[in-house]
Amino acid sequence: MPLLKAAIIGGGNIADNNHIPALKQLADRVELVAVCGRDLGKARALADKHNIAHAFDNTGSLYDQCAPDLVVICTPNNLHHPQTMEALARNCHVFCEKPPATSAQQARDMANLAVQKGLTLAYNFQLRQTSECALLMRCRANGLLGDIYHIKAHFLRRRGIPGWGHFTNKAMQGGGALMDLGVHVLDLALFALGHPTPDQVLGNTYDLIGKAGGKGLMGDWNPNAFEVEDAAMAYLSFPNNVSIMLSASFALNTQTDKDRNLEIFGSKGGVKLFPFSLYTEVAGELADIQFPYLDETDIQLKNTIAFLDACEGKPSTVCTAEQGVILQEIVERIYHSAEKK
Amino acid sequence: MPLLKAAIIGGGNIADNNHIPALKQLADRVELVAVCGRDLGKARALADKHNIAHAFDNTGSLYDQCAPDLVVICTPNNLHHPQTMEALARNCHVFCEKPPATSAQQARDMANLAVQKGLTLAYNFQLRQTSECALLMRCRANGLLGDIYHIKAHFLRRRGIPGWGHFTNKAMQGGGALMDLGVHVLDLALFALGHPTPDQVLGNTYDLIGKAGGKGLMGDWNPNAFEVEDAAMAYLSFPNNVSIMLSASFALNTQTDKDRNLEIFGSKGGVKLFPFSLYTEVAGELADIQFPYLDETDIQLKNTIAFLDACEGKPSTVCTAEQGVILQEIVERIYHSAEKK
Amino acid sequence: MPLLKAAIIGGGNIADNNHIPALKQLADRVELVAVCGRDLGKARALADKHNIAHAFDNTGSLYDQCAPDLVVICTPNNLHHPQTMEALARNCHVFCEKPPATSAQQARDMANLAVQKGLTLAYNFQLRQTSECALLMRCRANGLLGDIYHIKAHFLRRRGIPGWGHFTNKAMQGGGALMDLGVHVLDLALFALGHPTPDQVLGNTYDLIGKAGGKGLMGDWNPNAFEVEDAAMAYLSFPNNVSIMLSASFALNTQTDKDRNLEIFGSKGGVKLFPFSLYTEVAGELADIQFPYLDETDIQLKNTIAFLDACEGKPSTVCTAEQGVILQEIVERIYHSAEKK
Amino acid sequence: MPLLKAAIIGGGNIADNNHIPALKQLADRVELVAVCGRDLGKARALADKHNIAHAFDNTGSLYDQCAPDLVVICTPNNLHHPQTMEALARNCHVFCEKPPATSAQQARDMANLAVQKGLTLAYNFQLRQTSECALLMRCRANGLLGDIYHIKAHFLRRRGIPGWGHFTNKAMQGGGALMDLGVHVLDLALFALGHPTPDQVLGNTYDLIGKAGGKGLMGDWNPNAFEVEDAAMAYLSFPNNVSIMLSASFALNTQTDKDRNLEIFGSKGGVKLFPFSLYTEVAGELADIQFPYLDETDIQLKNTIAFLDACEGKPSTVCTAEQGVILQEIVERIYHSAEKK
Amino acid sequence: MPLLKAAIIGGGNIADNNHIPALKQLADRVELVAVCGRDLGKARALADKHNIAHAFDNTGSLYDQCAPDLVVICTPNNLHHPQTMEALARNCHVFCEKPPATSAQQARDMANLAVQKGLTLAYNFQLRQTSECALLMRCRANGLLGDIYHIKAHFLRRRGIPGWGHFTNKAMQGGGALMDLGVHVLDLALFALGHPTPDQVLGNTYDLIGKAGGKGLMGDWNPNAFEVEDAAMAYLSFPNNVSIMLSASFALNTQTDKDRNLEIFGSKGGVKLFPFSLYTEVAGELADIQFPYLDETDIQLKNTIAFLDACEGKPSTVCTAEQGVILQEIVERIYHSAEKK
Amino acid sequence: MPLLKAAIIGGGNIADNNHIPALKQLADRVELVAVCGRDLGKARALADKHNIAHAFDNTGSLYDQCAPDLVVICTPNNLHHPQTMEALARNCHVFCEKPPATSAQQARDMANLAVQKGLTLAYNFQLRQTSECALLMRCRANGLLGDIYHIKAHFLRRRGIPGWGHFTNKAMQGGGALMDLGVHVLDLALFALGHPTPDQVLGNTYDLIGKAGGKGLMGDWNPNAFEVEDAAMAYLSFPNNVSIMLSASFALNTQTDKDRNLEIFGSKGGVKLFPFSLYTEVAGELADIQFPYLDETDIQLKNTIAFLDACEGKPSTVCTAEQGVILQEIVERIYHSAEKK
Repeated sequence: MPLLKAAIIGGGNIADNNHIPALKQLADRVELVAVCGRDLGKARALADKHNIAHAFDNTGSLYDQCAPDLVVICTPNNLHHPQTMEALARNCHVFCEKPPATSAQQARDMANLAVQKGLTLAYNFQLRQTSECALLMRCRANGLLGDIYHIKAHFLRRRGIPGWGHFTNKAMQGGGALMDLGVHVLDLALFALGHPTPDQVLGNTYDLIGKAGGKGLMGDWNPNAFEVEDAAMAYLSFPNNVSIMLSASFALNTQTDKDRNLEIFGSKGGVKLFPFSLYTEVAGELADIQFPYLDETDIQLKNTIAFLDACEGKPSTVCTAEQGVILQEIVERIYHSAEKK
Repeated sequence: MPLLKAAIIGGGNIADNNHIPALKQLADRVELVAVCGRDLGKARALADKHNIAHAFDNTGSLYDQCAPDLVVICTPNNLHHPQTMEALARNCHVFCEKPPATSAQQARDMANLAVQKGLTLAYNFQLRQTSECALLMRCRANGLLGDIYHIKAHFLRRRGIPGWGHFTNKAMQGGGALMDLGVHVLDLALFALGHPTPDQVLGNTYDLIGKAGGKGLMGDWNPNAFEVEDAAMAYLSFPNNVSIMLSASFALNTQTDKDRNLEIFGSKGGVKLFPFSLYTEVAGELADIQFPYLDETDIQLKNTIAFLDACEGKPSTVCTAEQGVILQEIVERIYHSAEKK
Repeated sequence: MPLLKAAIIGGGNIADNNHIPALKQLADRVELVAVCGRDLGKARALADKHNIAHAFDNTGSLYDQCAPDLVVICTPNNLHHPQTMEALARNCHVFCEKPPATSAQQARDMANLAVQKGLTLAYNFQLRQTSECALLMRCRANGLLGDIYHIKAHFLRRRGIPGWGHFTNKAMQGGGALMDLGVHVLDLALFALGHPTPDQVLGNTYDLIGKAGGKGLMGDWNPNAFEVEDAAMAYLSFPNNVSIMLSASFALNTQTDKDRNLEIFGSKGGVKLFPFSLYTEVAGELADIQFPYLDETDIQLKNTIAFLDACEGKPSTVCTAEQGVILQEIVERIYHSAEKK
Repeated sequence: MPLLKAAIIGGGNIADNNHIPALKQLADRVELVAVCGRDLGKARALADKHNIAHAFDNTGSLYDQCAPDLVVICTPNNLHHPQTMEALARNCHVFCEKPPATSAQQARDMANLAVQKGLTLAYNFQLRQTSECALLMRCRANGLLGDIYHIKAHFLRRRGIPGWGHFTNKAMQGGGALMDLGVHVLDLALFALGHPTPDQVLGNTYDLIGKAGGKGLMGDWNPNAFEVEDAAMAYLSFPNNVSIMLSASFALNTQTDKDRNLEIFGSKGGVKLFPFSLYTEVAGELADIQFPYLDETDIQLKNTIAFLDACEGKPSTVCTAEQGVILQEIVERIYHSAEKK
Repeated sequence: MPLLKAAIIGGGNIADNNHIPALKQLADRVELVAVCGRDLGKARALADKHNIAHAFDNTGSLYDQCAPDLVVICTPNNLHHPQTMEALARNCHVFCEKPPATSAQQARDMANLAVQKGLTLAYNFQLRQTSECALLMRCRANGLLGDIYHIKAHFLRRRGIPGWGHFTNKAMQGGGALMDLGVHVLDLALFALGHPTPDQVLGNTYDLIGKAGGKGLMGDWNPNAFEVEDAAMAYLSFPNNVSIMLSASFALNTQTDKDRNLEIFGSKGGVKLFPFSLYTEVAGELADIQFPYLDETDIQLKNTIAFLDACEGKPSTVCTAEQGVILQEIVERIYHSAEKK
Repeated sequence: MPLLKAAIIGGGNIADNNHIPALKQLADRVELVAVCGRDLGKARALADKHNIAHAFDNTGSLYDQCAPDLVVICTPNNLHHPQTMEALARNCHVFCEKPPATSAQQARDMANLAVQKGLTLAYNFQLRQTSECALLMRCRANGLLGDIYHIKAHFLRRRGIPGWGHFTNKAMQGGGALMDLGVHVLDLALFALGHPTPDQVLGNTYDLIGKAGGKGLMGDWNPNAFEVEDAAMAYLSFPNNVSIMLSASFALNTQTDKDRNLEIFGSKGGVKLFPFSLYTEVAGELADIQFPYLDETDIQLKNTIAFLDACEGKPSTVCTAEQGVILQEIVERIYHSAEKK
């Protein structure tokens, strides 16, 4: 099979540290031909660092000159929609960074176009590739959990408002802690449940610490330019009496920084995801099961493989365009609920 | 001041172990004159054990013969309403066990009659008297927490369906884990917030483990007679953008049995209640504050004193009739939300 | 069913603290009518303490006057054989303290006479009644262990040579650490394996610390009167390629006092008995399973019930006369192997 | 003194990571002139990596062209014997990897030829060079242990069947867990005892997990090509009433991976080797002695020095040819005992 | 030998809980005939509780009527001197509570009179009887410590100003933390050194917390009546280049309540007393020695025995009159040094 | 502003690892032009390693050829005085390693000349730049400690006599553990107190371990050439009733190696410096405050910046010439006190 030609759009940290190294390790399946960034000099430097042939400062030239089979989109959230639409129009598969977009309508448009073009659109929720998530799905498939009926999912930082990038800019990011952190654990929760759509969504968002300022553990932030939520709390109620409690924060007066976890409660067993613990009954006694030898894995590499598999029509655990729509709608409904407060 | 005459209605464990010992220690303020129970022999035996003069098997005789100034009601939940109404009608102050009643309307009737009669009606939520709760209120008053905007409250047992009493009987208890356990931490959360009324309530209740049966850690239970929820999850949204996540369970596939705690998040500081930890900033640095020498207190004794203080018109931290109405309404709204699932 | 009449032979600590309290709690099945000890005054005092009608200083009078249905033998090891033989001859079921006897031939004689008389003879290896042992047998029955092929069993004390009784007297005890401590864990190991007979037995016994003297943690002992082994090490090889490593000590320069445990290795899972841990695979991953809520049980009461069940022909986990023979033969073969060193 | 000329036979990991770096650090005593491997290209690459002049793919050319004074043999176990015999015939000192050989007769032949030729033959049991082993020997010499009478030695892996090399190939390795891992701790035990020869040897070997397959922690292995034991258990009884319990496993359902330790029990003190703890009496009280500042040492470097010292006739703690024979005979007797099961 | 007749002077807690129970256990050596207290009723009640024949409210009657051989003085510090002088004058041995007196001159007078009368005067520093102190003296005698040259001794409470008794009354107690707590560890330090007299004494005393008030962990205290030091720090320099750092506090902003310990530094070994740890070299390596099985002892009983031994002229580790003088002089020199600050 | 020209005097480890890297990072403020060492070859090599233009083996040439604005003096203690005097005479600011000098008179001379020349002389006590020290000063400034009245300062090594350099040479170093280690914590204590001068100083010094020899944890030392103290203990009493206990050791039979800490006791709060803990009252309860997110900082870089700031007349926390005099006088008074023992 000939190699797929790939290009990177957006030359920041996540391209440099995650996507490019993963693609380079998969040289038997994909050839990384170009990097496209806002600043041609920086794009060129990044391309040189990784021995990539071409660098561009506009996507038009990229498509015209390189005709890639797939693109990886690593730009700010507000660019996910226009760049994905363009890529699909140019007949490329798209591997887009999370979150899918800054509105549900955008995500829906993107998914529709992918279907129409018969192309793969997927989102890079790479926590799905952790050994813990894989084991969770295996336990669920083996019936060790029975019916899952409640999930507590949280991704909490105590003072982790990033001091770099655009994380506090509402227009570019579309939101704050929920949009950046909460979506990771929400995706895992939905994945464990099979991506149902909630009947009811209730939520609140906050910004008291972000706007007040103070000690930062991920660099200093400007409280006067803090436009997003520093914390979001939500409750999702699904058909068949399933529920999720979701908590996300950039800043919260809580014990640890950072605390990212899920608790999945089923009729036969419950799981705490990190580190993976299974609470159930064995031989008629209450039992706590630990798995001390789970592999540490390169989750980006695994997720990129999953994307390539999807492009080739193989079974894959990558987040699909449709799953992205479901998630983005929930995020929007949480913000909508919170706005009225 | 002459001693108040007191009587106990309901001669079970909670009378024997909590209320009677507390009242006996307060012999300078109150004289415990009678015990009233369903079974005269048992009531007599309990009275003898504690050197109480009278025993009855009906409240009518109790009121006629002893004319108490106050009664303590320790009967199953479904009797709280009729017995409180009777006691108020008989011009007695009432110290009623939690939960207030089995419906919000009952609690409202009880509160209205108490106002009308100019008598004190209070509920025995004794966790308010812990050193931790007192310190929380002191920290709040000192401004150490800033504005409280979110509370996570839970009271979770892994396999703690009581194997005695009527805890799984819907008619007598009015509910399960929420009615019996959840109300304790809900009361603390409301107390910390000043008893606001929520705008929105969303919840789910479950009974999969209770109905399936299995290993019990508080005796064995009969899964075929399990009529209540084994777990309840709820989200409360209040005016001024305040929210509560509430979780309660008799049975849940979770790590510990039992786990009862609150996390209170404010703009300046956050508190984990048990053991009491304060997360805030001190001298410009993130600080974790522990209080290793908090007193262990006899919380029943303190709550009985608080009730007596209330009867005498003194400032008191006992749960008032009106606070009981607010709590009972929330419980009812959670069940109502859950029913539709 | 009429109550069984029981008598105690041997009025020492184990009668006072273990057997008499257990029998008294089983007053619905057995009536404890007499105590027989060497010293009539002490026997009388023990009987009075526990409200037992009769006391004797010789077994002849006991049998003549009380005609018990069963006796419990709590005397030094060298008396187990003659007293059991007499009791069986007097048509009594016998519940004999461990070890069965001081030689294999004695144990065989006792078992033979029990069979001949159609009576129950059982030994008080009460560790079989721990929740851990019960769970082990349940795991084995459920196939969680696969085939058990190796067991490490040890009962080690660092300086636990008892300073009272006759524990260092060879003639009365028949041996030292192996006879007193090792038999407990050997019985559990044999129980887990279904009481096979070993093909090969190899062992060593030691007395260097016992004869040298030093600091004692269970009272002081007289090194000049130390006639037994302070440590015994042995290896048992059974048909079907099954093996046991057995270690027992009264005194050993090791870390803890006391360390009593078994590790049971099977093809599918392995168990460490105290606290009970199961090492196996779950969902394709190596898993450690803990059981944090195992009941603490009154193992003497349970073992006495097991003996009574055996007397009544019910299924029972008490150590049978035949199992006692197998164990005593192994002990003798270990001593035999060690003697030649 | 002129430098000794050295050559490496066998160009695998152990040459690359252990022996070559050690020899290079000893450039004041030895000149490493050649590497000999099965594949000339790989041998050449290894030589280049370490700046070694010559590379060969057959030992004949090596000896003819380089005439080394000593060789280090790092090939599979079944080649130890022929290559050592050849090297001795070529008048070279030999430093051979452990185990000495795949049969006792081979080890005896090798030792005999070394004596006959007046050359040094030694085996690379480098754990002897740990600070812990050195301290053990010092404690023994100082009389802190009294007479050593029992040793428990184990080297247990839970799922550590190597997924590389020839570790499961009976013909090349001569055995499994005992031959690869057990020999390390057996050598230490024998070293502590002064290398006595046992009177009696009893053992069992197992392969149930190795043949069943499953999760591997050191790569995946092929259960269908699993020809060796995954576990070996043995008991050794020596003159003067000394005994060893030996346990080794590639795969066992036990708690940790890996657990390698020795407990040495003497009349005055006992030692747990890793981390080194001494259990004894001090000033009339039971005392636990820890040594928190033991040096971490480069045990390969130290053992290579010990070998060079031996070549030069200096006192040395390296494993001698004769000690290798004693060890190999014990290994063979264990396998012989196990075969009959 | 006839029994010694003993009487107790001072009927408070220390008599009730410590001295009387100890004397009652020594009924084979001493007969406790009387209790003398300020309040006859309380003295009578205490005597009755312990089956003591006589009770008095003045010492004159006690001596006249009972003619004791020895008295135990348990009164406030300022009475130690007059009551000891009277007791010696009445030909009684005296066992006096610590500290000896409220001035060095008093202690000297008391010691002189004891010598003159040929009677035993001793002080109840019972920490000398701990297993730890005994082991320290044994280690010192065995040469395990070499020459002791520096001791750090401290007895620190964080907020342990007693809320009962006269502990903050300067006139009755003679001082605060140093007089009540510091003397205990000073006595141990001096005991370890053989009671030398210091060349130089430098110290400071403080009362800032005591006078400010605040949270108390041993009851509430009255800051306005706080007349003594809440903390004392001192340095003692002895002949032969030996030094002590001494710290004592009732109240100090430190981590724990309470922290009482000594570190004894010698040329060969150092000791931390509680729990006893010995830091030294063993077999040429730095070694930490723990003694996990030290006996817990009834230190009051042992010290009372030591006093009785001293009365009978036997060797004894009780604090002698002369040792009391040395200690009291040091205390006085510390206060003298501190006064000038 | 033009760059300051800097030169390094003394080309050892501290220049190579600390001062040169710090100065190189500050290339926007200072240009490092030369290294001067005893051995020209080594100086040249060091200069080359760090891309420094010039190397000298005498200071005269350095000053003549380079005319630096500032010098950093990293030579043995006995050269601090002559080299500082020369540098000031040559109109250079001086950043001198600790301790200031080997006598108080030297330090005074150096400070006087700096004043006279209007130049900055500062000492490199870089622990002042730890986050812990900065937080201490902030807590003090915020009033969280109230009045500081006692400090315990220690820097203890168990067997940390350096096996390299001149640390045991009295003439070159001026002293041992106090001069090398004690000064660090003494400087912090004085800094916390505002550099008062003590009224009274009492101290002892020891050398028993240093002169006896033994196991070394920082290399081996020669006990026969051990001329300094291995431990120093001292007590400082200041006006206004403030005191310091100071302990320093190269070698002491204590638990840990190394233990460097300060406890600062104030009327409102106490601080343990490493890790930083604050013991105080919060909301009327005793509270322990931890700061889990203190930054780790490059303390050398910060201290070099502080020195440059001082040179430019900005506020600075660097140790001033005058503070160096106060410290050196105290050190001298401790040695003086100890000498007389």
